[in-house]
Amino acid sequence: MARGEFDLIAAITERLPATGPRLRVASGDDAAVIEPGNRATAVTVDAIVEGVHFTLPEFPPAAVGRKALAAALSDLAAMGASPGEAYVVLGAPLEAGDEALLAVADGIAEVAGREGVVVAGGDLVAAPRLFLAVTAVGYEGEAPLVGRAGARRGDLVAVTGELGGAAAALELLTGGVRAEGIAPERREALIARQLDPRPRLAAGQALAAVGATAMIDLSDGLGADAGHLAGASGGRLEVDLDRLPLAEGVAEVARRGGGVELAAVGGEDFELLATLPSERFDDARAAVGAGGVELTEIGYVTEGEGVSLRLPGGGELEPAGFDQRRGSRSGSAGSGSGSSDSGSSSSG
Amino acid sequence: MARGEFDLIAAITERLPATGPRLRVASGDDAAVIEPGNRATAVTVDAIVEGVHFTLPEFPPAAVGRKALAAALSDLAAMGASPGEAYVVLGAPLEAGDEALLAVADGIAEVAGREGVVVAGGDLVAAPRLFLAVTAVGYEGEAPLVGRAGARRGDLVAVTGELGGAAAALELLTGGVRAEGIAPERREALIARQLDPRPRLAAGQALAAVGATAMIDLSDGLGADAGHLAGASGGRLEVDLDRLPLAEGVAEVARRGGGVELAAVGGEDFELLATLPSERFDDARAAVGAGGVELTEIGYVTEGEGVSLRLPGGGELEPAGFDQRRGSRSGSAGSGSGSSDSGSSSSG
Repeated sequence: MARGEFDLIAAITERLPATGPRLRVASGDDAAVIEPGNRATAVTVDAIVEGVHFTLPEFPPAAVGRKALAAALSDLAAMGASPGEAYVVLGAPLEAGDEALLAVADGIAEVAGREGVVVAGGDLVAAPRLFLAVTAVGYEGEAPLVGRAGARRGDLVAVTGELGGAAAALELLTGGVRAEGIAPERREALIARQLDPRPRLAAGQALAAVGATAMIDLSDGLGADAGHLAGASGGRLEVDLDRLPLAEGVAEVARRGGGVELAAVGGEDFELLATLPSERFDDARAAVGAGGVELTEIGYVTEGEGVSLRLPGGGELEPAGFDQRRGSRSGSAGSGSGSSDSGSSSSG
Repeated sequence: MARGEFDLIAAITERLPATGPRLRVASGDDAAVIEPGNRATAVTVDAIVEGVHFTLPEFPPAAVGRKALAAALSDLAAMGASPGEAYVVLGAPLEAGDEALLAVADGIAEVAGREGVVVAGGDLVAAPRLFLAVTAVGYEGEAPLVGRAGARRGDLVAVTGELGGAAAALELLTGGVRAEGIAPERREALIARQLDPRPRLAAGQALAAVGATAMIDLSDGLGADAGHLAGASGGRLEVDLDRLPLAEGVAEVARRGGGVELAAVGGEDFELLATLPSERFDDARAAVGAGGVELTEIGYVTEGEGVSLRLPGGGELEPAGFDQRRGSRSGSAGSGSGSSDSGSSSSG
């Protein structure tokens, strides 16, 4: 069935964009050679594993490729970086058909083409289950790259786009939720939040340009990721949950609570959470909006540590996040203390 | 047993060297931020998977970490690059103990410290079997980086160090070969070729500086890798097998043929194969020798394509290589035609 390794690599390589302004030598040599010029680079690695981060057959192979690259690019978006190159390790069982692996490559190529990313190298290895490990490299533009550690007391907290869609999509795809009241086009749009997530690259660059003080992408969930940002910055994030911009259909999918919990705790929305001086908000909303993405104020930064997720009726929601190692949700993250600033598992 | 994800990541991060001259922001943010200056970068990715590239318990966890980073750095050595940063994805079963994962980190730290590499980022994910995917970034020095494609007719072919040791070590570790005639210290040295492989970084930079026209590291085996170089360069490599520098003990381990076959076909020696104008050989040998590594002339470049591995008694050995996807040896590589220049699976 499977053709030889070298033929398959050649067929995969053909499908991936492999020329770009900085590329001196592409895939096929011992290493790719990049000429970054005199610019700072942002580098991140991100891996997804079958059964942990996605399931088959709910995720078609192309969606696996799209998700792996999009998740890595989302980290670059959170730095305000301009995307450059990606390097992809594809691990696949021998019984995986070549067509499935080429479809994974097509998914990677689709996102790379859309976001202007060159796939400059890769590795293909045998593995017991499908996995993808993506290294993404981005570049500093006019504005300095934005980390997690710069939030200041009095900054407002804002979020791009809409929340809860990815968690709702997972309920529809694998959770047995039918939510038959949702119109088909809304259902499609929700499911796309899992099968075709969009990294907020333009929004991240716009936020960096208008002076965002800190940013993080929402991969582990708003509560957990806000905790990482608070921990790195040494402050406390107060978030009003009734201000969260819910993706359409999330309320219908949610088993309880009108969708706020899915939006606050669900992971993988790949929206950006940013802090910025309040006087910069109108400019920020306009700059992000120019790319067709909403920016919504959801809270502010105070003294202290950790995150407060305030429920509309009073009380607070417990922050929780996705434990990458256990492949399940835990309530341990987001406390804003010691461990947060040494890391999200998708860090750097 | 296992502590939480964030605690484990913190414990792993503590063990890895994370400061360096180019590092503005290290692991723990969405991405690491590197200031490469105005230098070209060489970037390579390399993954190893339990059961495919190593077996347990023959490979202790620290050896797995050492091997993963050393293999990636070997690609940088083959470009003549100066090593810079590494990014590590660690996939591990939930039942893997924290101590084993920390030992993997110790192995990575050992090689990183020895070679002056900063581990600037990573990702920890659940996976059915242990795997490591390493992205290594190196930098161009005074001499231009050297690819696979520059070999010219009349160049001589040289190899660093000693061959066959890694294949012989595998026979001792997992192949049931006892070879009781080998002295204990020789056995140790052989086994270290698998459990503590040394990337030829200084030799690669020395070869680039004296004008090597093409280089590749020997990961798939001399025959296969010579084929990749020949294919990329558009020439034919004539190799005299009786000139191969055999590691001590290889002949005793080999079941037949005095060890030449292990040296010519066995993978993972991580020595460098280089082509260079013959008048540069003495300088090259001196420059490589300054780092304590031998350089041996083993053949020359002619017109044509592919590789000729000439046996001492006349006749030729069939080039063969490791099929990463099948996890087994195949005879398909090294033909020097179309597929070779689109890639070794460990390319860029």
